[in-house]
Amino acid sequence: MKILEERIQKDAAVLPGDILKADSFLNHQIDPELMMQMAEEFKRLFVNEHITKILTVEASGIAIACMCGYVFHVPVLFAKKAKTSNLSEDVYCAPIHSYTHQTDGTVRISKQYLNAHDRVLIIDDFLANGCACQALIALCRQASAQVAGIGICIEKSWQEGGKQLRGAGYRVESLARIASMENGTICFLK
Amino acid sequence: MKILEERIQKDAAVLPGDILKADSFLNHQIDPELMMQMAEEFKRLFVNEHITKILTVEASGIAIACMCGYVFHVPVLFAKKAKTSNLSEDVYCAPIHSYTHQTDGTVRISKQYLNAHDRVLIIDDFLANGCACQALIALCRQASAQVAGIGICIEKSWQEGGKQLRGAGYRVESLARIASMENGTICFLK
Repeated sequence: MKILEERIQKDAAVLPGDILKADSFLNHQIDPELMMQMAEEFKRLFVNEHITKILTVEASGIAIACMCGYVFHVPVLFAKKAKTSNLSEDVYCAPIHSYTHQTDGTVRISKQYLNAHDRVLIIDDFLANGCACQALIALCRQASAQVAGIGICIEKSWQEGGKQLRGAGYRVESLARIASMENGTICFLK
Repeated sequence: MKILEERIQKDAAVLPGDILKADSFLNHQIDPELMMQMAEEFKRLFVNEHITKILTVEASGIAIACMCGYVFHVPVLFAKKAKTSNLSEDVYCAPIHSYTHQTDGTVRISKQYLNAHDRVLIIDDFLANGCACQALIALCRQASAQVAGIGICIEKSWQEGGKQLRGAGYRVESLARIASMENGTICFLK
């Protein structure tokens, strides 16, 4: 997606440790117009998939997921990382590892919001190792919901996540696929 | 706001411990059309305030904040609760207590995304004790940004947060103000 690639070149930074910092428009400060444009692009890509629900994980997936829900006219569900007193006990759980935070945790959703009739579009801001997607797929499997597709804003294509997910048969659409970012130069897959 | 009050009566539940569970449409599963309608209402209320930035705190404020950013045509900034490797060291910090999670923590924003030229609309899903708003106000004060208003989806008006914020001179607009929810019956302030 050209405007996203241009925005990455203009405003993202490459930090030591293979980190792409996109926090001026994607996951700390958010450009809501860009979110809407990306949501429209996901709609174009997945329009024939009869999506009934958008699924993401807190926190930085929520913005793009919410815009997707708006353009798809379906509810958004975000998996929670913390055990909270206002989430019922009747939950699906899956383990998740965060490379960003260097933590192991659990994500959970209330059983009542995902079921066997759902065709789910998983949405997230980044795809690298694929840990978040795998956790969300595990939640869908527990609910017998079908994963109709996976929509990603920025994929680091040299990491394993995208390859594994596509290898497992999932349709993964990433709006920007970074091929490399050596010496701070960001190159996209053509 | 009538459609929000009706939705609360229809789909929210009162749980022991003064908890209003709105997780079917607001803070776990999200109804994005309702988010957009609420954002439009905040726009109507704050249209003359020359808002330059929407500020919220992760995670459940992000959905409504993002829609507000879209209708106000301004960036959204969400304060982070976790120290993360892709947030720079150059941050404003404020303490925050969560009654929901029974935890004390810190919220942080990168200094570069808030400054003395900003007129900030603070947005959150719930207002009860006001801890989240107070933390966000503290961040604005550190940045010398002006708090032009506070927009809340659901206020528990018998708790101290709203009274304290209004007493301190802030303009707080809550789209649904609950007067009481004794014995599971939700009554709104008229």
